[in-house]
Amino acid sequence: MKYYSYENFKNDTNSLIEKVRSSDFDAIVAIARGGLTLSHVMAEGLEIRQVQSIRTELYDKTDKRDQISIFVKCDFKSAKKVLVVDDIADSGDTLKVVMECLESDFSDIDFSSATLFYKKTSIYEPNFWINEAKEWIEFFWEKDFCHSKNT
Amino acid sequence: MKYYSYENFKNDTNSLIEKVRSSDFDAIVAIARGGLTLSHVMAEGLEIRQVQSIRTELYDKTDKRDQISIFVKCDFKSAKKVLVVDDIADSGDTLKVVMECLESDFSDIDFSSATLFYKKTSIYEPNFWINEAKEWIEFFWEKDFCHSKNT
Repeated sequence: MKYYSYENFKNDTNSLIEKVRSSDFDAIVAIARGGLTLSHVMAEGLEIRQVQSIRTELYDKTDKRDQISIFVKCDFKSAKKVLVVDDIADSGDTLKVVMECLESDFSDIDFSSATLFYKKTSIYEPNFWINEAKEWIEFFWEKDFCHSKNT
Repeated sequence: MKYYSYENFKNDTNSLIEKVRSSDFDAIVAIARGGLTLSHVMAEGLEIRQVQSIRTELYDKTDKRDQISIFVKCDFKSAKKVLVVDDIADSGDTLKVVMECLESDFSDIDFSSATLFYKKTSIYEPNFWINEAKEWIEFFWEKDFCHSKNT
């Protein structure tokens, strides 16, 4: 397990921002919860005001692919190019389903995806990613904030 | 202007998490963009999976109160107690309008609000807040991520 600190995040996210900048995205979709912090700071760095989140839920871990539900409908107004942001493409199940749903529901919008980490075994490769994940990543947002009074 | 670092944020957010923990919220609403990172880490610390964002827009800075639009409809499923999260209650305009809209649209849900900063001149006081804002706060998410290739 690798602890991924805020300092690591800051450096990698600035690299990711530079990678996507020339694509001139109009809006960002954060996949909650994992993509929320990354979406926030990328939107700041890219000066994109349109940020919205979608929430997914996995119902059955033994057969995830058919069991992902997406909550919250998106509203893109006049956006033409939208960046979908998550922390990691691990199995890739979530990102694959999200991208398929968005592309099907909004066929006139050009969607791309960006993550900090990509695992080579993922069934989906994001358009932009920074690090290959070779072990379990423990993000600072999972580790630095207390989970219970007793721990 | 005061720079608000990740370390400050970490400490204050852990205090905020302990303040709200006993209220047993079912869901979090992040006010985008400012409340996104805070919502993410609070959801992690409180183990709340239901996080969604709403986006507001100010049309005319000379008369903001009537000009705030709220984008993206919320979907609370079975949630009974919902925490609305933003970084700061500055003028308080946004939070006041958001709370009024949510309370009007979802009259069976108990809404509370939480921010890291509260300015005494705000027209709205969040139910939970940590610091009084006495000067302009520059949050790490506004400062640490590059805004353009040339700066």
